Amino acid sequence: MEPLIYARLEDKGRKFIEDVKGRRVFALYFIGSTKTSTIPGISIAGATPELTLYTPAVDVEYLVLGKPVSSEHIPVTPEGIPTPALITRAVLEKTGMPFMVVDTGSFIEPKIPHTLLPSRCVGERIDSGRALDYETTRKLYKEAGILASKIAGVAEVIVLGESIPGGTTTTLGTLVALGYNAWGKVSSAGPSNPHSLKEEVVRKGLERNPDLPTSDPFKAVSRLGDPVHISIAGFLEEAVRRDLKIILAGGTQMASVLAIAVKNGVELNDNVVVGTTRWIIEDESSDINALVEMISPKTPVIAYNYDFSNAPYEGLRYYEKGYVKEGVGAGGTSIAATAVMGFNYNELVESIYKEYEKLTRGNT
Amino acid sequence: MEPLIYARLEDKGRKFIEDVKGRRVFALYFIGSTKTSTIPGISIAGATPELTLYTPAVDVEYLVLGKPVSSEHIPVTPEGIPTPALITRAVLEKTGMPFMVVDTGSFIEPKIPHTLLPSRCVGERIDSGRALDYETTRKLYKEAGILASKIAGVAEVIVLGESIPGGTTTTLGTLVALGYNAWGKVSSAGPSNPHSLKEEVVRKGLERNPDLPTSDPFKAVSRLGDPVHISIAGFLEEAVRRDLKIILAGGTQMASVLAIAVKNGVELNDNVVVGTTRWIIEDESSDINALVEMISPKTPVIAYNYDFSNAPYEGLRYYEKGYVKEGVGAGGTSIAATAVMGFNYNELVESIYKEYEKLTRGNT
Repeated sequence: MEPLIYARLEDKGRKFIEDVKGRRVFALYFIGSTKTSTIPGISIAGATPELTLYTPAVDVEYLVLGKPVSSEHIPVTPEGIPTPALITRAVLEKTGMPFMVVDTGSFIEPKIPHTLLPSRCVGERIDSGRALDYETTRKLYKEAGILASKIAGVAEVIVLGESIPGGTTTTLGTLVALGYNAWGKVSSAGPSNPHSLKEEVVRKGLERNPDLPTSDPFKAVSRLGDPVHISIAGFLEEAVRRDLKIILAGGTQMASVLAIAVKNGVELNDNVVVGTTRWIIEDESSDINALVEMISPKTPVIAYNYDFSNAPYEGLRYYEKGYVKEGVGAGGTSIAATAVMGFNYNELVESIYKEYEKLTRGNT
Repeated sequence: MEPLIYARLEDKGRKFIEDVKGRRVFALYFIGSTKTSTIPGISIAGATPELTLYTPAVDVEYLVLGKPVSSEHIPVTPEGIPTPALITRAVLEKTGMPFMVVDTGSFIEPKIPHTLLPSRCVGERIDSGRALDYETTRKLYKEAGILASKIAGVAEVIVLGESIPGGTTTTLGTLVALGYNAWGKVSSAGPSNPHSLKEEVVRKGLERNPDLPTSDPFKAVSRLGDPVHISIAGFLEEAVRRDLKIILAGGTQMASVLAIAVKNGVELNDNVVVGTTRWIIEDESSDINALVEMISPKTPVIAYNYDFSNAPYEGLRYYEKGYVKEGVGAGGTSIAATAVMGFNYNELVESIYKEYEKLTRGNT
């Protein structure tokens, strides 16, 4: 099994993967909430729309401790399929990759040691057209950059992941607010992507903002975005300035991060790739390559080639039916584990199966 | 100017310094408050006893941003002598050493990106004999260890510093509660060490705890300690387990950290040194060597040989009269800058003078 798929700009992608081999890697998982995820039908990253607000905190509690604290169970879809944090947790445990959690506006404070941005705040429903205060948006970007300036020097390769239910809808909102034709291109954690509902929510938000689109990413995010993407973009700018290699670990949400950075004039050069999963690049209801092409045409997309068709657990086989797909940096963390740290595909898959086994034994 | 002074176990100290040369270093500054610092006369780490509660947050705001946010000015003694964070800030800026701030119980939340322990809490006055809840004490230790397990892998050398006004009094409390004869041996940020007041405070706390002394460090800290030392010790245990090299960056407060670790059965081996300043080891009103000797006889003490006798700023010349001496990891951070990163004495002193110049120009 070839573990990596070069989904976009293969030569550049291979060059990046060669460059990062054996280097020091550090992962950061940015969490935050947007009340957009409570609109029924928008997000299945939680057993109910209300529970999606708790998902980011519980995801990272599980990531750090191997079990949730603020909830009895780890986050699941309404069908009971577990969070992609399962993959990330298994890979982090297997590899010992150092990492931290950054709270940009989680609905509840995760009960683990974690880093916070002082201006963290929960995003409002974007159909209101007022997602975040404008000044707060600027501050989150700046504070994430300050964090990067103090800590990014510990590593040569940085993995930036996210956990924000509703994040593909805020991606659509941010991109459209910035003037990109992103309609119908963002992904979803379910097998049937609720494009028309996402579009309706974003159009409502747009209607309240006759001054959109804009080329100001802070304005776009403050109207139709969320606290996570702007923070990752702020970190990214500083990491790029330091000439670090960065894996944007996520699905179509990373298009929003790229757009914010590009509109802020960040020169990504050869330092940045999007790192995701096969389920994202093969998803017929979204188009990550088209998004990256229109936003940052020189940025490669690389996917981890997980195949759970023959997984011994039904919850993992569901991934092959279009559930979950990506999140909490699952794909990009796996790419780093293999490309940077040298762990092979089978080692990672085995650790994922073991982690799933623990779950089914009810240890969490 | 020989930049390092080997104050205790010179051969072992030199071996440590040789071992860390050129390695990857990461610094953590643990902040927290104890209401003990509000007892008039206990601490001069603030313009008034009440203001000492704000010092840790403002210290690290200044460390990260070069200016305070939660206060108009950086912390000063009642005489107007600036916080030792000035030295640390200058050295971190000069060297680019990566670092993070860890909140274990600051009276106010610092307005910078920082890491927190979920059980963080302000310590009560130790003359009450109830400094911290026992379970909270255990949790802080554990959470700091979890933090270390996720992040310490980024480096080979770890600098652990503190900012907690009243911390030498809680050191005395913790040590005496653990059965050490530490009376009269802890340091102070002023030229005349208020030993009798510290003793009175600690004796009051002891009187309320007829079951002391104890060999249980969690009990000792929960009665007469503070949130910072227990957290540093928890981090230390995990860092030692990973065979990292650790510089305990502080004055006599690090004796409390050592005692907690030793009583928890942590094998320090050759991995740990106390890194401080010349002002601490030459202080006639305290005895860091005697403290380390009775707690962890195999641990070297190394001091940075700053001499501000001819400094162009009065506030720095005051250091030579016994003011400030140490804090916010000033000595240990300087040792790492020289021993690990190769910056020489003059480079560090120049950057300190420049930083002081900025202060006097009123830029903060």
